[in-house]
Amino acid sequence: MTSPAAPLTYDQAGVNYDLIDPLKITAQRAAAATATHLAGHGFSEVKASRGESAYVVDVGPFYLASIVECLGTKTLVADEMARLTGRSFFAGIAQDTIAMAVNDLITVGATPLVVQAYWAAGGSDWFGDAQRAQALVAGWKAACDTCQVAWGGGETPALAGIVEDGRIDLAASCTGLINPKERLSVGDKLGAGDAIVLLASSGIHANGLSLARKLAERLPQGYLTEIEPGLTYGEALLAPTALYSPVTEALWKAGIAPHYCANITGHGWRKLLRHPSSLTYRIHTVPPKTAVLEFIQQQAGQDDREAYSTLNMGAGFAIFVKAEDAERTAQVARDCGIGAWVAGTVEAGEKQLLIEPLDIRFSEDDLALR
Amino acid sequence: MTSPAAPLTYDQAGVNYDLIDPLKITAQRAAAATATHLAGHGFSEVKASRGESAYVVDVGPFYLASIVECLGTKTLVADEMARLTGRSFFAGIAQDTIAMAVNDLITVGATPLVVQAYWAAGGSDWFGDAQRAQALVAGWKAACDTCQVAWGGGETPALAGIVEDGRIDLAASCTGLINPKERLSVGDKLGAGDAIVLLASSGIHANGLSLARKLAERLPQGYLTEIEPGLTYGEALLAPTALYSPVTEALWKAGIAPHYCANITGHGWRKLLRHPSSLTYRIHTVPPKTAVLEFIQQQAGQDDREAYSTLNMGAGFAIFVKAEDAERTAQVARDCGIGAWVAGTVEAGEKQLLIEPLDIRFSEDDLALR
Repeated sequence: MTSPAAPLTYDQAGVNYDLIDPLKITAQRAAAATATHLAGHGFSEVKASRGESAYVVDVGPFYLASIVECLGTKTLVADEMARLTGRSFFAGIAQDTIAMAVNDLITVGATPLVVQAYWAAGGSDWFGDAQRAQALVAGWKAACDTCQVAWGGGETPALAGIVEDGRIDLAASCTGLINPKERLSVGDKLGAGDAIVLLASSGIHANGLSLARKLAERLPQGYLTEIEPGLTYGEALLAPTALYSPVTEALWKAGIAPHYCANITGHGWRKLLRHPSSLTYRIHTVPPKTAVLEFIQQQAGQDDREAYSTLNMGAGFAIFVKAEDAERTAQVARDCGIGAWVAGTVEAGEKQLLIEPLDIRFSEDDLALR
Repeated sequence: MTSPAAPLTYDQAGVNYDLIDPLKITAQRAAAATATHLAGHGFSEVKASRGESAYVVDVGPFYLASIVECLGTKTLVADEMARLTGRSFFAGIAQDTIAMAVNDLITVGATPLVVQAYWAAGGSDWFGDAQRAQALVAGWKAACDTCQVAWGGGETPALAGIVEDGRIDLAASCTGLINPKERLSVGDKLGAGDAIVLLASSGIHANGLSLARKLAERLPQGYLTEIEPGLTYGEALLAPTALYSPVTEALWKAGIAPHYCANITGHGWRKLLRHPSSLTYRIHTVPPKTAVLEFIQQQAGQDDREAYSTLNMGAGFAIFVKAEDAERTAQVARDCGIGAWVAGTVEAGEKQLLIEPLDIRFSEDDLALR
């Protein structure tokens, strides 16, 4: 292992949220103004879902939830690792892509039903590599099997001149139902006294890859650097994102209806502040960091505050439940093969996240998503 | 105007469907095998929607339809025209993107309810051009207004290394309901004796742009070539795609339920052969070509068979209705501001499309989509 070089921030890694976020806000305002169209069809939006991870419409007997999500730049790591090792990592990449959509959709209480594939290649040639293409198909199907969703179809355009030659832009859309309607987990269910249960991540998932790729450039052995005996940095980065819908479905079957959920993606643990209410989130138990996240933090020279503000640091999903359901929620997750910790409590008070074991505080100003 | 040079086929323009289609078939098989998951949620797929433009699930009180669609490479024309004229064409581009999704979703009889935006840029900088970004937002909202859909949200990733610098990969997902269920227009409703009504296109729409861009390279004045007094080739190409959902909604209100619909996109008029049944489609009336399509056909040196097999040639959407509803269907479309022609009939017989005024025949072998 090399020693840490100069600190590397997320912005230096090439993602400038300052340029994107103003457009997001304008777009969100325009989008909100279109909600009135639903009345013409006899329906209405669930206003509390605006600003949440998935959009929800009340269609009468149940709620309809939908989303589209991009994988990001994780394929660049898979491409480079394929060059270095001769192996294809696209089965895992397929799972990552579906996880981005499914793990967001379930935050509102939805059961994912249909996934659509969006595979936009830099040219028809991409699809000519049969081994890679078949891995993508097989991984996509396997993730659908895990999440018990139907793969409806999709789009496989060849976009020479837009997508770079030899690359692919992967995304997934997902549609689901909140059924019965009391499963809806946006709005005012969350409150003081609730418990915070954190679910284990499998690694970096699909956020923070720009930073992770920059670090690889600084390592003499790059992606082949061993971060643990027998485990290279590249392999560790490519661990497929955990799929959490089996947990949320099992919770419902166990009679537990989360009050709120947060998918911990971009902005790291600041996503725990996502709910619009003024509440204090006090974390007393911090899950272990996965090896690859510990390695990234060390190599990037990040203090804990920076690391937890951008990466999942071992916790990929947060479930907010009644305190009395907390231990059972964690057990249901473990029974699904996902590590889980009763990690904290929701309290009355100003909007802030207190990660007590690490002496970190994030306030509302640290997360401007709405 | 320059004179026609050597003929230019669609394949020469850089899209090789032979490389994409085998993967599509493998993916379609894997996707079909996931349908059984819906039973675990108490639902089932509408099997006849496999291979159609949108995927349909029976959720009890109504059918759920969903789709994701890519714009393609039309933004490359908009980017070049912005450079040449200083104008932004991204409001129209937004409409094109939504049209790709909405015009497909309505073919199964669905009312589009929610659109999600997928705007994947080559870097954060793309969003820093405020004029262009605002045009995209404004055009997106206007198209949602026309289609009476709610803009649910979306994804605006910056994908340096995957999407080319300065470019953007645009797509839309759309979710809708088929409500009441008798509006479903896949399966065995289509039959001999039905009439074919063609709806006018507004130009090239968003298919055939690879070919159109190649042609621009061969023109001495490129996109600034006048194809009609005061209308440049670039402007004509950038006419936004017609949105057909106001027509299908108005038809339902008028008591007309199409037996089948085909969105005429890639593969041009061969899309009229999309329905799986063995039926003969006899066209007796051919809508006028739009100026830009006539120009492309001439410049590419295409005969009618080649042109109608790849481009919409003036007809962007086909509606198959009971013969007695044909004239009224065309009138409802015209009342929505969309040109329409009662153009042909469905007959018993081998699977083929006969465009009689042009002496063209396409057989099943000419369209291998399933």
